[in-house]
Amino acid sequence: MNFEIELENRTKETESVVKAYLPEESGWAKTVIEAMNYSVNVGGKRLRPMLMAETYKLFGGKDKAVEPFMAAIEMIHTYSLVHDDLPAMDNDEYRRGKKTTWVVYGDAMAILAGDGLLNYAFETALTSFEMSGSSVAAKAKALSILAKKAGIHGMIGGQTADIEAEHLGGTVTQEHLLFIHEHKTAALIQAAMMAGAVLAGASDAQVQMIEQAAYEIGIAFQIQDDILDVTSSLETLGKPVGSDARNQKTTYVTLKGIEEASREQKELSAHAIELLAAFEKEGYHNAFLLELIRSLITRDR
Amino acid sequence: MNFEIELENRTKETESVVKAYLPEESGWAKTVIEAMNYSVNVGGKRLRPMLMAETYKLFGGKDKAVEPFMAAIEMIHTYSLVHDDLPAMDNDEYRRGKKTTWVVYGDAMAILAGDGLLNYAFETALTSFEMSGSSVAAKAKALSILAKKAGIHGMIGGQTADIEAEHLGGTVTQEHLLFIHEHKTAALIQAAMMAGAVLAGASDAQVQMIEQAAYEIGIAFQIQDDILDVTSSLETLGKPVGSDARNQKTTYVTLKGIEEASREQKELSAHAIELLAAFEKEGYHNAFLLELIRSLITRDR
Repeated sequence: MNFEIELENRTKETESVVKAYLPEESGWAKTVIEAMNYSVNVGGKRLRPMLMAETYKLFGGKDKAVEPFMAAIEMIHTYSLVHDDLPAMDNDEYRRGKKTTWVVYGDAMAILAGDGLLNYAFETALTSFEMSGSSVAAKAKALSILAKKAGIHGMIGGQTADIEAEHLGGTVTQEHLLFIHEHKTAALIQAAMMAGAVLAGASDAQVQMIEQAAYEIGIAFQIQDDILDVTSSLETLGKPVGSDARNQKTTYVTLKGIEEASREQKELSAHAIELLAAFEKEGYHNAFLLELIRSLITRDR
Repeated sequence: MNFEIELENRTKETESVVKAYLPEESGWAKTVIEAMNYSVNVGGKRLRPMLMAETYKLFGGKDKAVEPFMAAIEMIHTYSLVHDDLPAMDNDEYRRGKKTTWVVYGDAMAILAGDGLLNYAFETALTSFEMSGSSVAAKAKALSILAKKAGIHGMIGGQTADIEAEHLGGTVTQEHLLFIHEHKTAALIQAAMMAGAVLAGASDAQVQMIEQAAYEIGIAFQIQDDILDVTSSLETLGKPVGSDARNQKTTYVTLKGIEEASREQKELSAHAIELLAAFEKEGYHNAFLLELIRSLITRDR
């Protein structure tokens, strides 16, 4: 298996699943739907739906019932970026080299597009009830996981703590920062992998292991982000580096120094891979998933 | 039955159901939760959860499984107001005589509080799967109705058309205005009553009748709003009258004149009540529900 080629193929597959579930741009609500689809089509690594699909495969999932959930988690991830970019929030005009949603469609429509994506995520995931594959109980459980990890005790909680951290300037504690990373970044990765496991019929104990592994992957992923902001270049990263320092933002690197941050990042990712590899003893294999996680954490952009 | 006293009792009951499901204000996400609860506690008639509970009772529903859905629909209604009031949207500083959420908590936190309420609505409704009463299929169907009627093909679609109508000034067509009223106002009333019916085990044909009646109630309710803005006073209405004229807003009254608007409003409401009363032949009674709808449409505030 050539990982790079395989990654490209699976990214395309994931992309086509996500796009198949986007709403049609027609009717009186056409503008908000255009804004929603624009936001999703700006692109990205499609990491969350890919992790969901691969965890689903790890536990032997073979049906299409996972697909509406894959689209749903990408919609949730996207809505959070659309609202984050608003002038009232981070006031970002570009994302992945393209104009952000509010710049193209205006603030009001961007607020509605974010709301529309969040709502449509649940609407989409709920269509799984009409599909074969996975039990009704598994679908209801996957939905609950998605809702919890995206909400005030998950991603929205992390965003709240992040906004409050900005007001604190340089006095953010490690506990506070870990809460932000766990909730703003790791929670949706947990949701993706846990929902994939649940839909494939994994046991509660297995889902718990996945929750822990996904937590470690999420934190390691975020620490890598903080490291790259210091060590990378505009050319490699595709966005300006050093923004954390300019914004006097407390990061894992400012708190612990780059060497210690890097050491902890490696420790977390090694442990996450160990947890996932341990499923092999129970007969569950997915070599691509392990490679994918290794690549995330050693990535240079 | 003294309707006024009964209405007061049921409003209190509904209020206590909604409040029982509000999230606890603790942890790192405390601020956003406070902003969410502030928004819900500002009050209102609790019309949507009350209509849900009464339609549930109409079809013989007796369990508590409807309660998380009652809380959910009030959270969805509330989030739409929180986002509507934002400076980037209607820029309203007061609602029901109290400061709006963004005035108290700032724009960023108000955006997150709206997101939090929408997400928590689904999180809350999903807890019904852990409760007895109503079938799993009924709960999944009620959830889908809620999601559809709140989304881009429901309320968010109506808000989109409303924002676009503002840019058109006085040239809004009747078709455009009806789309706004149907989606911005009637859709959540439909969701409330349909979900109540579905959870109580009503048949598809019965749910369709309820959808039609709720459509008529929603439109009649909105026309009454437009009429009161012309005919009422600040003292009676509790908010400034004449705001539609000042904003050069196209309403049912500007399109059709007050007499014709009033005639259509009465016709719609009479027909809605007729549809609901027809269920009596099948053995389904709820005298309070019929009175409630009459009172909504003849209200002077």
